[in-house]
Amino acid sequence: MKICKVLKPLVSTNRIPGFEHKHLQVVQDGSAQLVAVDAVGSIPGDWVICVGSSAAREAAGSKEYPSDLTIVGIIDDWDPDAER
Amino acid sequence: MKICKVLKPLVSTNRIPGFEHKHLQVVQDGSAQLVAVDAVGSIPGDWVICVGSSAAREAAGSKEYPSDLTIVGIIDDWDPDAER
Amino acid sequence: MKICKVLKPLVSTNRIPGFEHKHLQVVQDGSAQLVAVDAVGSIPGDWVICVGSSAAREAAGSKEYPSDLTIVGIIDDWDPDAER
Amino acid sequence: MKICKVLKPLVSTNRIPGFEHKHLQVVQDGSAQLVAVDAVGSIPGDWVICVGSSAAREAAGSKEYPSDLTIVGIIDDWDPDAER
Amino acid sequence: MKICKVLKPLVSTNRIPGFEHKHLQVVQDGSAQLVAVDAVGSIPGDWVICVGSSAAREAAGSKEYPSDLTIVGIIDDWDPDAER
Repeated sequence: MKICKVLKPLVSTNRIPGFEHKHLQVVQDGSAQLVAVDAVGSIPGDWVICVGSSAAREAAGSKEYPSDLTIVGIIDDWDPDAER
Repeated sequence: MKICKVLKPLVSTNRIPGFEHKHLQVVQDGSAQLVAVDAVGSIPGDWVICVGSSAAREAAGSKEYPSDLTIVGIIDDWDPDAER
Repeated sequence: MKICKVLKPLVSTNRIPGFEHKHLQVVQDGSAQLVAVDAVGSIPGDWVICVGSSAAREAAGSKEYPSDLTIVGIIDDWDPDAER
Repeated sequence: MKICKVLKPLVSTNRIPGFEHKHLQVVQDGSAQLVAVDAVGSIPGDWVICVGSSAAREAAGSKEYPSDLTIVGIIDDWDPDAER
Repeated sequence: MKICKVLKPLVSTNRIPGFEHKHLQVVQDGSAQLVAVDAVGSIPGDWVICVGSSAAREAAGSKEYPSDLTIVGIIDDWDPDAER
């Protein structure tokens, strides 16, 4: 899983019905920005665990859910500098 | 999911039947160009959400659809510079 | 999907039976060289669409086919320089 | 599979129920830090084999387990310098 | 699929039962070193085709096999310099 920082919610009015009403968050993954489905209720600034691959789908709620990146946990205490 | 910019449609006359008649778009993903199946009717210039992995298949219409990147939403308002 | 250029066929006499007799092509993907199963009859020099992930398997012929990269279409007209 | 070094356990109190009580480890993968589900009881400093993709799920215990990176083995003897 | 060079066998005594007794090989993939399950009986120095994604699992023997990278063929004749 990746360690990402939540930046802000993403608004996409015209999207496939499969997304339902789940929240999408823009997350920072190193130097890249990705979009993740939020399964834990994170807020901007949180350091979170994001799961990808097919696991992102059930993590978002069902085998059919069209996610390839889902926020599955909020890290209690993360110091990015201490880790580098 | 990735945040990509739609560049232009891609024409491929000789392709496997599995693609049916769905539209293919060339999208910019950072410095790379990829091909995505368009499930939302995007147009060049749109900033879109692209889903990969096995989720790209059902997002494109069915478990059997041979896509590994599908445009699943158009972002309402995206300023790439503000994000960098 | 990736946009790759077909370089040449790859010969591998000692390979798993699962590959059957399908053709393997060496393709250029940016600065990397990959091996793709050819499902459309491409030739060296063609610009092609390559699909990865689990979609590469059915695209190559069946759910069980052991491919993670399959050539699924030949691009009618591609100018790599115009795209850069 | 990837060759990673175990750095430390990761604590995430607010996480999806699907993770159950399995241990999460922060692992070093080249210059990146990832989170892996520990299926073998590794400790910080161990060099381990991490499996990704859908294989990470059954490796962690079941088809439904939401992991995309699972520690599946401890390497008996690994000298990173000798390998470079 | 990737084109890799086999470096040496990898010994991991403490590993999940799912790996059974199949051989693991350390392979060079560009500048990275990965671990692959050997399905063709390769030896150090061989240039091989490695398949990833979910295809690596059946290629290693069964739908449940926990591999994300499996050696599926030995390349008859590969000149890395000629390719660059």
